[in-house]
Amino acid sequence: MNKLEKIVSLAKRRGFIFPGSEIYGGLSGFYDFGPLGVELKFNIKQEWWREVVRTRDDVVGVSAAIIMNPKAWEASGHLSGGFADVLVECKKCHQRFKTDDFEGECSNCRGKEFTEPRQFNIMFKTFTGPAEDSASTVYLRPETTPGIMVNFKNVLDTMRVKIPFGIAQIGKAFRNEINPKDFIFRTREFEQMELEYFVEPQKADEYFNQWVDLRFKWYENLGLKNIRKREQSKEERAHYSYATTDIEYEFPFGWKEIEGIANRTDFDLKVHSKHSGQDLTYIDKESGGRFIPYVIEPSAGVDRVLLAFLCEVYEEDGDRAVLKLHPRLAPYKAAVFPLLANKPDLVEKAQQIFKNLKMTSLNVAWDDRGNIGKRYYSQDEIGTPVCVTVDFQTLEDGTVTVRDRDTTKQERIKIQGLKNYFEEKTK
Amino acid sequence: MNKLEKIVSLAKRRGFIFPGSEIYGGLSGFYDFGPLGVELKFNIKQEWWREVVRTRDDVVGVSAAIIMNPKAWEASGHLSGGFADVLVECKKCHQRFKTDDFEGECSNCRGKEFTEPRQFNIMFKTFTGPAEDSASTVYLRPETTPGIMVNFKNVLDTMRVKIPFGIAQIGKAFRNEINPKDFIFRTREFEQMELEYFVEPQKADEYFNQWVDLRFKWYENLGLKNIRKREQSKEERAHYSYATTDIEYEFPFGWKEIEGIANRTDFDLKVHSKHSGQDLTYIDKESGGRFIPYVIEPSAGVDRVLLAFLCEVYEEDGDRAVLKLHPRLAPYKAAVFPLLANKPDLVEKAQQIFKNLKMTSLNVAWDDRGNIGKRYYSQDEIGTPVCVTVDFQTLEDGTVTVRDRDTTKQERIKIQGLKNYFEEKTK
Repeated sequence: MNKLEKIVSLAKRRGFIFPGSEIYGGLSGFYDFGPLGVELKFNIKQEWWREVVRTRDDVVGVSAAIIMNPKAWEASGHLSGGFADVLVECKKCHQRFKTDDFEGECSNCRGKEFTEPRQFNIMFKTFTGPAEDSASTVYLRPETTPGIMVNFKNVLDTMRVKIPFGIAQIGKAFRNEINPKDFIFRTREFEQMELEYFVEPQKADEYFNQWVDLRFKWYENLGLKNIRKREQSKEERAHYSYATTDIEYEFPFGWKEIEGIANRTDFDLKVHSKHSGQDLTYIDKESGGRFIPYVIEPSAGVDRVLLAFLCEVYEEDGDRAVLKLHPRLAPYKAAVFPLLANKPDLVEKAQQIFKNLKMTSLNVAWDDRGNIGKRYYSQDEIGTPVCVTVDFQTLEDGTVTVRDRDTTKQERIKIQGLKNYFEEKTK
Repeated sequence: MNKLEKIVSLAKRRGFIFPGSEIYGGLSGFYDFGPLGVELKFNIKQEWWREVVRTRDDVVGVSAAIIMNPKAWEASGHLSGGFADVLVECKKCHQRFKTDDFEGECSNCRGKEFTEPRQFNIMFKTFTGPAEDSASTVYLRPETTPGIMVNFKNVLDTMRVKIPFGIAQIGKAFRNEINPKDFIFRTREFEQMELEYFVEPQKADEYFNQWVDLRFKWYENLGLKNIRKREQSKEERAHYSYATTDIEYEFPFGWKEIEGIANRTDFDLKVHSKHSGQDLTYIDKESGGRFIPYVIEPSAGVDRVLLAFLCEVYEEDGDRAVLKLHPRLAPYKAAVFPLLANKPDLVEKAQQIFKNLKMTSLNVAWDDRGNIGKRYYSQDEIGTPVCVTVDFQTLEDGTVTVRDRDTTKQERIKIQGLKNYFEEKTK
């Protein structure tokens, strides 16, 4: 197995990620997050929200509906071809390929003759109301951005924000990708973490650079090492973008974007203002100046980021795997064991510690099977940073053995010191 | 304005809830959550997850895709009419009505002649892959339950769970409701918090009663008073349900279900086992017993619960409103003010306190406009439990004035004591 296959296998075996509707043979491009995956994903989103919203005084959040008034998609150009894949079809096996990652030979059948490129809109469409006709056609959002843009005025009117300020959103988006691939890297249902940061046009470059740096550091601080910044060339950039820098991670399948920071200029607010007839001008109350703000957009894919973290921290030690996840991201912050499962005194004491830690909302695992060595390895494989063992000495002096995942070093600490110990670890 | 209209107005004016895509005239049945709404909703979901997953040792979470393999909907009966609204149509104005809340007269045109009731499937359908045909038809889930059921075996195989155990999920669901109404009570896109708790068949009644009590207490503990339990009659219950108890809240528009606790028996696992060909039998490793578990399902609507909390805590004091939200639910835990906005010493000190509180991830508001009285009222209206004022005495002795939303009492406490003070408040 190559590295990606090993990660897919571990993710399935240990309850991180399952193929969607797996008992029915799955569904191409859809995945379900298992008990550990849902916690890991939650932790990534929480870290992002903490950094981008909670600890700042210039960003607020929103959560817009996935299904929007279709006029929003007309305005943004998504309907008129702006959000289409250009595809070629193999004349032999009829598989379709995106032109941007097409290598000139058909992987299925080795065919070498293809149709001319054609447009294929990748928005999922559905119908709202009792009739199924064009008047009732609506779309699942293919990106979360417009959900923020249509609320720009509402936020201005209700939150007393002043330029520069941002609106952040985490939510699902859907794209009918022709070739879902690379595990959860390119799927049809995925989650985005996006910030739209509204600024004075003449300061856009400055804030753009600031956000590129801030976002890059966020990944570094959480332990992502194989990352780089890459400026998109003029040819690559979306038509509305004045500048875009991708943060790329070196996946087993190559360097790929996990987040893009774009200077979208005043494109979005202008088109939404025009199509909605609403004035989206910002008025500076101090200077009286009026302008349509530029927007800097750091936009990350939660699933891609999650996969990048898994790839980064996956290590092998002989024939076993260790996930060296940052403690803030690890699904379980600790595991608690009784040294022996057949000694009621030890089990009771360990259960007590386990439950007390859980009552502080710390996500903690319990294991009393097999020997301690096997339990350590089992927790290493899912990234638990610390194992706590209750043994006979615990009953005498109230200390436990804590064992560190990364150093495998063990030390004895007081039970009362555990809460602080975990707080230090997750700082 | 009646009470509901006042709440809708406050929700809009203060950034809790906006009509979806509002600048485009909205979209019937869809709402966007603003900066305060997204925090309130997050807090409700977090409290549920803490109670139902984190502090228990027998429940794990999942997060399944919204779009599932359509075979799952065939199995569960959603496609064959099991998830249809029965509607009648007014012969005069052609509006359609659900028969279960139909009053015999058409509210729009006062027409009294209606068609025979007809079935109308309320699942949103879309297409995956390049073709739009029946083979590629998929559905947006109308409830989160099947996303748990199809992962029952995956969880069994990966998480070493033992009966009784539960699988919890929070996520969006979509229903093409014919008559979205009552603000966010009945919408087309909404969020559910669901637990499927798997038990031995002969113990199902016992756990059913346990969960009814646990869930009822959860609401009570968070301050919901106008609630009651109501057993559904045999005629009301879904065909798969052996017993259902609703937790109802007395909204301004009447007593309505905010959560249902159902004994779904072994219906779901049996039909999914039959249709998928997968064995979903549980094997008790100790006794060797084999059985299909029964499932107890507490299922709550996040948006309904949020609306219930808003209705419950909305109070008027003269011509102003106060939201007496539980501190754990309040969007902002505190607001920080400098007594006077034109005294740099006070502003600097207040900013320091504000930023330190934010760095602990506490959601804190800032206000330096107008006089203190107006600021108190402004924070009362959005449910902020505590206001902290920095005045001249602060600069001398390091104390601040804290003012309680519900008692309006003020006391002076040390700045260093603030963190503990808030921890006590949100316990």
